[in-house]
Amino acid sequence: MNVEDLFSRLAHLMAGSAIRKIGGIAVPDLVSFAGGYPAPEAFPWETVRDILRDVLDGPNPRIFQYGATAGHRPLRETVAELCRARGVDAEADRILVTTGSQQGLDLVARVLLDPGDVVLLERPSYTGAILAFRNIGATMVGIEQDCEGIDLQQLQRALDAERARGRRVKLLYVIPNFQNPASRLLGRRRREELLDWAREARVLILEDDPYRDIYFSGSASDADTRPIAADDSKHDTVVYLSSFSKTLAPGFRVGWMTGPPALLTKLEFAKQAADLCTGGLDQVVIDEACRRGVLAAQGPRLRQLYQQRRDAMVAALERHLEGRLSWQVPPGGFFLWARLSPPLSSEALLTHARAAAVSYVPGTAFYVDGGGQEHMRLSFSEPAPERIELGISRLAQAVATAAS
Amino acid sequence: MNVEDLFSRLAHLMAGSAIRKIGGIAVPDLVSFAGGYPAPEAFPWETVRDILRDVLDGPNPRIFQYGATAGHRPLRETVAELCRARGVDAEADRILVTTGSQQGLDLVARVLLDPGDVVLLERPSYTGAILAFRNIGATMVGIEQDCEGIDLQQLQRALDAERARGRRVKLLYVIPNFQNPASRLLGRRRREELLDWAREARVLILEDDPYRDIYFSGSASDADTRPIAADDSKHDTVVYLSSFSKTLAPGFRVGWMTGPPALLTKLEFAKQAADLCTGGLDQVVIDEACRRGVLAAQGPRLRQLYQQRRDAMVAALERHLEGRLSWQVPPGGFFLWARLSPPLSSEALLTHARAAAVSYVPGTAFYVDGGGQEHMRLSFSEPAPERIELGISRLAQAVATAAS
Repeated sequence: MNVEDLFSRLAHLMAGSAIRKIGGIAVPDLVSFAGGYPAPEAFPWETVRDILRDVLDGPNPRIFQYGATAGHRPLRETVAELCRARGVDAEADRILVTTGSQQGLDLVARVLLDPGDVVLLERPSYTGAILAFRNIGATMVGIEQDCEGIDLQQLQRALDAERARGRRVKLLYVIPNFQNPASRLLGRRRREELLDWAREARVLILEDDPYRDIYFSGSASDADTRPIAADDSKHDTVVYLSSFSKTLAPGFRVGWMTGPPALLTKLEFAKQAADLCTGGLDQVVIDEACRRGVLAAQGPRLRQLYQQRRDAMVAALERHLEGRLSWQVPPGGFFLWARLSPPLSSEALLTHARAAAVSYVPGTAFYVDGGGQEHMRLSFSEPAPERIELGISRLAQAVATAAS
Repeated sequence: MNVEDLFSRLAHLMAGSAIRKIGGIAVPDLVSFAGGYPAPEAFPWETVRDILRDVLDGPNPRIFQYGATAGHRPLRETVAELCRARGVDAEADRILVTTGSQQGLDLVARVLLDPGDVVLLERPSYTGAILAFRNIGATMVGIEQDCEGIDLQQLQRALDAERARGRRVKLLYVIPNFQNPASRLLGRRRREELLDWAREARVLILEDDPYRDIYFSGSASDADTRPIAADDSKHDTVVYLSSFSKTLAPGFRVGWMTGPPALLTKLEFAKQAADLCTGGLDQVVIDEACRRGVLAAQGPRLRQLYQQRRDAMVAALERHLEGRLSWQVPPGGFFLWARLSPPLSSEALLTHARAAAVSYVPGTAFYVDGGGQEHMRLSFSEPAPERIELGISRLAQAVATAAS
């Protein structure tokens, strides 16, 4: 029996993530700028050890039992408080804990999209979201960004064009804070305009906010990161997603979402069938870490750590690749989005880069319409500064080889 | 904006699990026979504590990092060995770790089924699987069982009828060992016949095997639980799912699957978009528990524990409900499947049961075609024997009230 004959139509669309593929390549002494991985030094190892010791010393077998689909109740309360600190009005009952925010994206896609329905998204945008939308057979339309973020006129034109084709436009997917991959910070006024636009257009905004705590002094402030959801007081236009993966650790698969109540109910049903519930131990550890002030303490520490790495990457690029590569200095987040001088393509360069023991993600992984050949995403989050310097010097070597 | 206007067609089909709904009801001093929850006393608490201490003492930050989508490599090796011990030929490369085996069901549904495609399944069958199939818009056809399990003639008739209607019949979903909810053990010869039938019919078998270690002496043996997958030497007909939820603890969301290689590749892509990877700490703890012999040691302990509870339930039923309820003594697993004497319906009885502080799941939750009104699933796995006695006496009281 040939199992491929039994595949669903959607399965034929499913393909591996370019990031995960590149991330999985084994090259000795590789400097990887590919994965958007947090710095392992940033994990609050000691505190997690203390928490686990305490949790396991006072036996509460419930943590090893099946849990509620919507999440561990104390964690939902903690998350609601966290949302309020960001300006987002939320109560525990409107928090859905997800198995990482990737699950949130997947659930939203399933509950809202029929094959062919349109998702508008930034051009470029996050690969994991593109995969989730593609797996449901959605039509994705990338919208150009200017320096303030998504271009409103283009957005309206895309809406009109798709509706004129008879398609249902249901979602606008945005990462307002230090966007993956382009590290853009959506302007504050643009956020308001997007919300107004969405209300008028009757399109839901799916706001993905994993990087908001990683703003760099001199480039951005806490106030700049105010979520679009903070102004959705009727809770009917914005679905807000966030996660602990970038601030505590991604190995705990814990993210969350809030949004319109009727949608959350359906999302919870979808999650029941998807994995019943998120891991109990992970949820308890995350909740305790928040309650003990670990998350709050991580903020300044992470900003300093990642700012140093950003600075190391920018300095190394200036030293080794000025004139060959152009970029904007990231105001926060994990990524530097760089552009190669023509005629080099980032996919073609990758072979040379690998030979020089350095990797990155070619820009094409972030485009839904075939763009990005000249772009690359360089993650500065995982390697230490001296490794960043080494990696960029190797990249320069690869560029020189490719250009010659 | 009314978000319901934006729901996908499939979202309209999504509904909550009856089990989870009943499980979530708060009644003081409730004896719950509803959830299929393992006994908390059975969790290997001390060992998990030791493992976590060791894992966290030797800092390996990788466990808190994003992991491979297919799973933590050492765990995949451990699971492959576990499969081989069950007679299933598997290598680590053909093991996909899932976030509980519920995720496996959901991924299989998504990769194989288009809306309208047919899944054949036992009548009655597991609610979680029914949800996963329903969420993809599958047509489900329940097949009657005789004392050996699924009835082959009925199966063939259903196949012919569905194909005559122009539908694609892609999957036969079975739980051969101590089936949820009816606790049936599929006969050994019937397993071989089902495999032959599936090959001939070009239908994949989805074999769900969470309860195989919980066989009761005098009723069943290890040899009786040999998976159907053990005879699928070409790896082209059976997708095999299992989990640690019933043997170690469900709070660690760790299940696994093996099957046709081309299918596993697609399932891995689907998992990337669904949650990127399963929790790192959970996978390490489970792997260590297996390597330290904890899983092996759990077997005899669990069989004894659950057999005592089954015996307690059967004794209590004989004492309090003989003549009102009929049942078969479960040869293993977590569930006793009981039938009420007419004209009582198990849904109507539930109100009286709740008033008496006892709960169960009405049979209707396990039928895809409206059957099960006279049945109920009584889980004996979680409550201690004295609570079982108390719960059954309350149930008897509820039956008496309802009948009067």
